[in-house]
Amino acid sequence: MSRPSLHKKERHKTLIEKIKQDPFLTDEELAEKFSVSIPTIRLDRLELGIPELRERVKNVAEESYGKVKSLQVKDFFGELLDITLGKYGISILQTDDSMAFEKTKIIRGHFIYSMAESLAIAVIDAHVALVGVANIKYKMPVYSGNKLVAKAEVKRQKSNNYIVWVKITEKQVEVFRGKFILVSLEKVDKK
Amino acid sequence: MSRPSLHKKERHKTLIEKIKQDPFLTDEELAEKFSVSIPTIRLDRLELGIPELRERVKNVAEESYGKVKSLQVKDFFGELLDITLGKYGISILQTDDSMAFEKTKIIRGHFIYSMAESLAIAVIDAHVALVGVANIKYKMPVYSGNKLVAKAEVKRQKSNNYIVWVKITEKQVEVFRGKFILVSLEKVDKK
Repeated sequence: MSRPSLHKKERHKTLIEKIKQDPFLTDEELAEKFSVSIPTIRLDRLELGIPELRERVKNVAEESYGKVKSLQVKDFFGELLDITLGKYGISILQTDDSMAFEKTKIIRGHFIYSMAESLAIAVIDAHVALVGVANIKYKMPVYSGNKLVAKAEVKRQKSNNYIVWVKITEKQVEVFRGKFILVSLEKVDKK
Repeated sequence: MSRPSLHKKERHKTLIEKIKQDPFLTDEELAEKFSVSIPTIRLDRLELGIPELRERVKNVAEESYGKVKSLQVKDFFGELLDITLGKYGISILQTDDSMAFEKTKIIRGHFIYSMAESLAIAVIDAHVALVGVANIKYKMPVYSGNKLVAKAEVKRQKSNNYIVWVKITEKQVEVFRGKFILVSLEKVDKK
């Protein structure tokens, strides 16, 4: 809040860059970054033709799903935000009561696992990819309502074997990490 | 089919034992075991007051769910067949297209994981149990329509830490195995 506000032109340029780097910045966060009011940011977006966060996320998601080869959109657990096949991917998940233990409101492990597995499969640059081995660790309980961000990274590929690491965070705190060994079935016959 | 058929009384006695050992024996399987016709088995069951397979499974399941402390019935993925808290458990899952990849009809890993995780949590003799670590291996692809049988065994308990092994088979062939390290939250406060 203490930084001096940039000139409008300069701010517009930086705004475009910032949103390109992180399409999930809210108007509130942008206002704080630029030390201006929220209405100023709204006006900036309007002038620059940048849609609001909700719309931006939708656009990014649609583009990302288009790239995935190994999964149908309906098979994806969570919302895919960004992906580069064979390299990395990001997804988000808004948890709710339907995913939680009734007694404790703690999100059941298998929902977190599903989020991670979906992303691990999606990042593989192959039409069919299956998990062979997974070593996973739940580091913190996740509660109903928490918003999760998953990041997957393809660590190694050797013929049709892939090693993918997935880390899930809630408000920057790591709640889950998993190492998945996947196999693409490109050359394997169906039973 | 070549074994001589037992006398009725003897058969009745053995029938009761066999069904007690494995409540999921079908009339067809029983007929083959005793080298008699299927109607004979039906008549035997009727005389002995043993309900048909469907009903038997339901009875066993209801009894088993009653014993579980850590999970609500609605939170259980699969059908629980037998359980001894702190020791072992068995569940079954009839897979279908809704659990499969559209392209290959292979059942998605996270459904198999969910079956295993549910059982691993259910066998724990505690009111709240969470998975901390899981090391899992998918050994064979499972196809839509396959019937899965999961068996869980509590291998070690050390204060509120538990090691549970889960093995899942399809027609006696192992398709999945997992080692789960669980933590019961009996003494841990909710966030």
